[in-house]
Amino acid sequence: MSAALTPLLFLHGYWHGSWCWSEVLTHVAGAGRPAVAVDMAGHGLRARRPACLARRPYAPEALATEVSPAADVDLDQAGELLVSQIEDVGRGGPVTVVAHSMGGTVLTRAAQLAPELVAHAVYLAAFMPASGTPAAGYLRLPENAGSLVGPALRADPAVVRALRLDPTSDDAAYRQHLRDTFYADVGPAVADAALGLLTPDAPAGIALGATALTCEGWGSVPRTYVTCAQDRALLPAVQRKFVDDADAAFPDNPTSVVALDASHSPFLSRPHDVADIVVKLG
Amino acid sequence: MSAALTPLLFLHGYWHGSWCWSEVLTHVAGAGRPAVAVDMAGHGLRARRPACLARRPYAPEALATEVSPAADVDLDQAGELLVSQIEDVGRGGPVTVVAHSMGGTVLTRAAQLAPELVAHAVYLAAFMPASGTPAAGYLRLPENAGSLVGPALRADPAVVRALRLDPTSDDAAYRQHLRDTFYADVGPAVADAALGLLTPDAPAGIALGATALTCEGWGSVPRTYVTCAQDRALLPAVQRKFVDDADAAFPDNPTSVVALDASHSPFLSRPHDVADIVVKLG
Repeated sequence: MSAALTPLLFLHGYWHGSWCWSEVLTHVAGAGRPAVAVDMAGHGLRARRPACLARRPYAPEALATEVSPAADVDLDQAGELLVSQIEDVGRGGPVTVVAHSMGGTVLTRAAQLAPELVAHAVYLAAFMPASGTPAAGYLRLPENAGSLVGPALRADPAVVRALRLDPTSDDAAYRQHLRDTFYADVGPAVADAALGLLTPDAPAGIALGATALTCEGWGSVPRTYVTCAQDRALLPAVQRKFVDDADAAFPDNPTSVVALDASHSPFLSRPHDVADIVVKLG
Repeated sequence: MSAALTPLLFLHGYWHGSWCWSEVLTHVAGAGRPAVAVDMAGHGLRARRPACLARRPYAPEALATEVSPAADVDLDQAGELLVSQIEDVGRGGPVTVVAHSMGGTVLTRAAQLAPELVAHAVYLAAFMPASGTPAAGYLRLPENAGSLVGPALRADPAVVRALRLDPTSDDAAYRQHLRDTFYADVGPAVADAALGLLTPDAPAGIALGATALTCEGWGSVPRTYVTCAQDRALLPAVQRKFVDDADAAFPDNPTSVVALDASHSPFLSRPHDVADIVVKLG
């Protein structure tokens, strides 16, 4: 009976949605494992799009100034939503959660809130911030110098309270920059389709929130970090720092590390490998 | 061991993608059932967007004339893709497939091609066309008079070879029409987010293709039809005609019918009910 199999829950990163996991989930379902991908607060079916992107005629100056309709979304809301999604999937039992990129920040919050509900926390090229440190703090570290995310933003997050992309832009150079940032090892047709599905405004509040971590909370949950060696959004040096900092803070529960030679989006470029890694974790 | 549980595969309709099933899948995963939602040919991560929708300044006249970049997608391609997706999920064993709207046309083709791989065919407010009849033929029937889909199209499908919507339009009346067409019983925030995820061009070739059905093929597969009483896209009278025609052609394998009091999009408005229905089918 399948009740013995721990369900898997997949949480995307900023701008993405449940849609980005469909190839991974095909392989996971083929392995007989119950699994689901959910939308983060402010994303996918929970997204709110800024009016300026749809306005005709197009008024580019509004991109830099329109406060995001998702400006109120913060880490408290995102973490509570993830706990409720875990409860729905696990029906009271523990769930293995796989988080990508900024989804890791939300996973860390949820696992601290409800460590008994997280069988295993898997960070895929994800933020795994230290106790009391917002994810945003890592963006400005020397280890992240050269990340392509900053130049992709179309507004100051302090002004619009979102990390705003213009994913359906008709500017060929900008589109190429977005592909280089997220999808360098993904075919151009799939990369273009993915851009068409992105949520333009990622709520800044998720990256600005911090979580105090305890030994009995997040520190008690088994965790795996999957590094992506060709990542140009969240650089490999930052990924290593997350692992080093976590292991220094919680030495009795060290991180298992798995290496992938992939861009920031292995769910698109290496879906079999991602599925194989997580199915084996239990 | 979960190998005894038949996996579920969910296929969306025109314009939608794997993303539309996330709430349903949460409940299905909670029931311990392996399941996945996939993208139809020409949709989601397989979509190709017309350049005219992104052009700045906006050139509305191009909407009516630009041939769709998805114009080559037809029912042959869509059916073969679904068979391969079923094979990936089932690993050689049968899969229960739940299809919505135009996804039903693709399910019918796949089940005729590989009836041994489809444990149960579930049509959710879906096209279930009779032998040799294209889905497009049903759009012009008296039973479908009053459907809101036709007035929502922004181009002649014979010209652009796609059923083209303008889902991120800033025209409030047009947006309301799209919500009335697809999401009348869905909250406005979720409906707006769904519009932002739609694939603008649904390839006409899928609706223009026909499948010859045989007793040993599609006619041998157990099937359930879930009717949606408030559907304003595919009208209830057409849904009933699909069932009547199928039962007349294959009287030894009658359709099981389940009624939902929902719009065309119960995966958004009634996700618990949809999950409950399909999980019970085996």
